[in-house]
Amino acid sequence: MTNESDESSGNGFALLLTGLSGAGKSSIARHLVEYLQQEAKRRVTLLDGDEVRKHLCAGLGFSREDRMTNVRRLAYVASEVVKHEGIAVCAIIAPYAQSRIAMREMVQRYGRFYEVYVNTPIDVCESRDVKGLYAKARSGEIQLFTGITDPYEAPVQPDLEIDASVGSPLASAHQIVDFLAHISKGRQLFSRR
Amino acid sequence: MTNESDESSGNGFALLLTGLSGAGKSSIARHLVEYLQQEAKRRVTLLDGDEVRKHLCAGLGFSREDRMTNVRRLAYVASEVVKHEGIAVCAIIAPYAQSRIAMREMVQRYGRFYEVYVNTPIDVCESRDVKGLYAKARSGEIQLFTGITDPYEAPVQPDLEIDASVGSPLASAHQIVDFLAHISKGRQLFSRR
Repeated sequence: MTNESDESSGNGFALLLTGLSGAGKSSIARHLVEYLQQEAKRRVTLLDGDEVRKHLCAGLGFSREDRMTNVRRLAYVASEVVKHEGIAVCAIIAPYAQSRIAMREMVQRYGRFYEVYVNTPIDVCESRDVKGLYAKARSGEIQLFTGITDPYEAPVQPDLEIDASVGSPLASAHQIVDFLAHISKGRQLFSRR
Repeated sequence: MTNESDESSGNGFALLLTGLSGAGKSSIARHLVEYLQQEAKRRVTLLDGDEVRKHLCAGLGFSREDRMTNVRRLAYVASEVVKHEGIAVCAIIAPYAQSRIAMREMVQRYGRFYEVYVNTPIDVCESRDVKGLYAKARSGEIQLFTGITDPYEAPVQPDLEIDASVGSPLASAHQIVDFLAHISKGRQLFSRR
């Protein structure tokens, strides 16, 4: 169906869910992955920022350089998944535009890349504060916290923007599925197997 | 052809080329990857120890713990490649049996795993000393050097053993191809695309 010479037209793609801590990225990603596996019968690699930090990026901190390394490693794994025609769902803050552009370039060597901006207002993220991180950032216990003491460069032209302060993570995941179905058109979102 | 419930019977596999520094792992791996891409029309991810240390594992040293982390990260990427039915060729010293067993377990969740022991005698590796590392290890400039000042736990029951002191890297790569063709039998080594 494809060969090495037109690898970039393969059926694989990577989806980056970028946004603040507490925006709902991980929850949306989990629902999305479940849908893609169960309904679309696709193989999916979930690369969640928190999980990735435990193994792939253990030892990295939150400086600009370390954050960029973190995203670069995740982008590398995502690009390899796409090379093999898989789907990579990446849920990570990825606060720097430069990192996200580099990620797009890496992935597009092999397939499609979509940037989804999970745009939940910071006051909503902070009011949820599921992991208690905002409180720690305000008290100074955590330094370099995105949105409080470290920048988040909001995507200017994301492929899709979601306000996850409205509706459930499941509803947001469905919004992404609709987007994928629409943008895929002739291509197959559903497995050809 | 396959679905999520029998993922482990997929067409993907990982091949670990383990052996001393200078054994010929990288050269053999490059020839093997070329064959698999050009002749078998398969998509292949090459995970070379030296390359991996530059990005995926930047900052890791050569202590037992760091070496194990190094192999674990590479095993993680390899297992994701295999999950998506790709081929991962891993050329890395991987001196500890425990690491190699863990790698096998990670990969076998999704597909096949073969351990190839590139068994080149240390005096041959040292006489080649392509990167000048053995000289530095002997002089003490490099510490914790596998085979000199750090252990290499030779595989007891590798899936394939190659003496790369005999013949060219290309010949060794062909030996691996023959092995794969033999062991694959009903399965497809060549692309079904």
